[in-house]
Amino acid sequence: MTKVTILGSTGSIGRNTLEAIHRLKSKFAVVGLAAGRNIPLLQKQVSRFEPQIVSVEREKEAAELREIFKDTSINILSGEEGAEEVARYSENDIVVSAITGIKGLKPTLAAVRSGKRLALANKESMVVAGPLIQDEARTSGAEIIPVDSEHSGVFQCLMKERREGIKKVTLTASGGPFFRTPSREMNKKTLEEALEHPRWNMGRKVTIDSATMMNKGLELIEARWLFGLHPQELDILIHPQSIVHSLVEWRDGSLLAQLSPTDMKIPILFALNYPERGEAVLPSLDLSQVQTLEFFEVDIQKFPLVRLAREALEEGDSVPVVLNAANEVAVGAFLDKKINFLDIHDLVARLVGDHQKTEVRSLEDVLELDRATQKDGWNYLEQRY
Amino acid sequence: MTKVTILGSTGSIGRNTLEAIHRLKSKFAVVGLAAGRNIPLLQKQVSRFEPQIVSVEREKEAAELREIFKDTSINILSGEEGAEEVARYSENDIVVSAITGIKGLKPTLAAVRSGKRLALANKESMVVAGPLIQDEARTSGAEIIPVDSEHSGVFQCLMKERREGIKKVTLTASGGPFFRTPSREMNKKTLEEALEHPRWNMGRKVTIDSATMMNKGLELIEARWLFGLHPQELDILIHPQSIVHSLVEWRDGSLLAQLSPTDMKIPILFALNYPERGEAVLPSLDLSQVQTLEFFEVDIQKFPLVRLAREALEEGDSVPVVLNAANEVAVGAFLDKKINFLDIHDLVARLVGDHQKTEVRSLEDVLELDRATQKDGWNYLEQRY
Repeated sequence: MTKVTILGSTGSIGRNTLEAIHRLKSKFAVVGLAAGRNIPLLQKQVSRFEPQIVSVEREKEAAELREIFKDTSINILSGEEGAEEVARYSENDIVVSAITGIKGLKPTLAAVRSGKRLALANKESMVVAGPLIQDEARTSGAEIIPVDSEHSGVFQCLMKERREGIKKVTLTASGGPFFRTPSREMNKKTLEEALEHPRWNMGRKVTIDSATMMNKGLELIEARWLFGLHPQELDILIHPQSIVHSLVEWRDGSLLAQLSPTDMKIPILFALNYPERGEAVLPSLDLSQVQTLEFFEVDIQKFPLVRLAREALEEGDSVPVVLNAANEVAVGAFLDKKINFLDIHDLVARLVGDHQKTEVRSLEDVLELDRATQKDGWNYLEQRY
Repeated sequence: MTKVTILGSTGSIGRNTLEAIHRLKSKFAVVGLAAGRNIPLLQKQVSRFEPQIVSVEREKEAAELREIFKDTSINILSGEEGAEEVARYSENDIVVSAITGIKGLKPTLAAVRSGKRLALANKESMVVAGPLIQDEARTSGAEIIPVDSEHSGVFQCLMKERREGIKKVTLTASGGPFFRTPSREMNKKTLEEALEHPRWNMGRKVTIDSATMMNKGLELIEARWLFGLHPQELDILIHPQSIVHSLVEWRDGSLLAQLSPTDMKIPILFALNYPERGEAVLPSLDLSQVQTLEFFEVDIQKFPLVRLAREALEEGDSVPVVLNAANEVAVGAFLDKKINFLDIHDLVARLVGDHQKTEVRSLEDVLELDRATQKDGWNYLEQRY
């Protein structure tokens, strides 16, 4: 029995992970859950999966849960420290890191330091602290298996082949809800339209990142650190069907691609079962039904955040931290209907443009720069809007 | 310097191999060449690549070549024995087996028995004697790397993973020149039309096999023995762009696919360079230029040889030998304009239908059954046409 802990259990990846584990009960058990404020759902998850350790964002709600589960031995904690304790719980075999945003960084690092397998869905931690996380993984012996469908695909294409043979790694993007929207209409796009993703059913933050295509930019930076690639070895291609998740081009002109139905349970189960291939929980992909796979270049004029992300990818050091923090503020403001769709890029471009690159040496450097950037962002928004 | 020998040097694969080696002169040297009757081309190849051992089909032409190259130390042989001697020449590091048809079987086996790497393009030897070849390879330690683009793709998708994880291996087919021809017009198709392959520039036999789609049937049988798969783990999909060469579906619902430009130099160089990835000799594949990849089911009514091949795949033993021999006779007769396009299927179906399955225990069994079937085929043709 493999013991799994999920950080961010009430989010989209967390729910998918639990659904997959539920179907494979004889193989996996849930030992830890960390969630935010969706207490009704967490309570159901705790009742159903009977973990040994749980954490929620606020102590008040932790106390309520302790009362509800007082007849059990479940250890219920709260706050950032609670999530970190769940992450490094000694019984864990695999930690699924699925808290969205920079909030996931410290629990992710705690899991990496414990030396267990990390199934990584929290891309932001790799974006802002990739080299630090990889250093910690080397020290602790933690194995990092990506859960993002694109990175899972790259991982599957790369396994056991020699890195020096790589020419280019391409992540595909569905293009999001505005792929076919003319540039001149982008300024009219509402929150509701941005949340209508054509292919993937995901959390709100990543759905907006998908509409701006910043998601793909963050994924490029994530891929750099996950796979130890050079920025110029990384590329994006629009693929509206979201069947091919990534492609690796080898030096000899041959490519391997990973394909699967558009469902997060596939990369999640890959990360849990690796190096084995577990049973399928979905019907097989039938390409003669899909019939057509299309590929297009990214329109950088229409999705300028991709250019900013590419620049941050090449700059490295503090620039991705600022890019990510600025984007979190901007997407948060857009989700709160404080700004318009095109303002997301304006805010990110302003904050990144104002930043002077510095070296990032520690987790503290990352967190301080993140806080400072978020503060600048909110200040700017208050003055401007 | 890796020393390469090419069996079938004047054919399509042979010429492509020499072209690729010519571009990578610092890495590969040609030590042996075996050819049939295209003596002018062979003479040029010998002058250019300066092999140590050469064989041609007829002794008369071998004697002429000996006279031409009398000031060199090149050993010039003839006949089946000559080709076998080239195949097992002690200096060989890699033998590219690219003689078309059953004629390639004995030289292929000679190469396998010598324990060197076999780059296998002669699919017929795997079709008629797969288990025998694999037994010999186990004994001699020979490494078999496929050169057929589809099988090279499967090899690349598989090389890193455990076989028990495989659910299905799919070979793609361009669909050949008649993919879009209505069934009712198939009976009017001429030799010239059948030789107009839309994607691949290949030899005449395999181009006709591609028009009837028997090529894909033979490749299924080849894949069975190359990769140790069950017949029900093998499938075909029409893919007119010929960019995706094969796909492996894993038990967990994830697929790996191999893609490359439609040029045989890519799988040839893969087989020569493996396990390294050598330099590309072609521009990169740009999917945003290709834009669309399509996939369709095979129309078994229109291409009934695929059904016959599938049945032979499932039957095994002597049935693929008869299928292959019958097809060689039928395609030969079609190339000589003795029969019409649809007669190819009629002849193969008749010979396979008349056959009582027997066990195949030795190379002699294979060759005898092949000869008997070819004789029956020609007799039938003489009576009928």
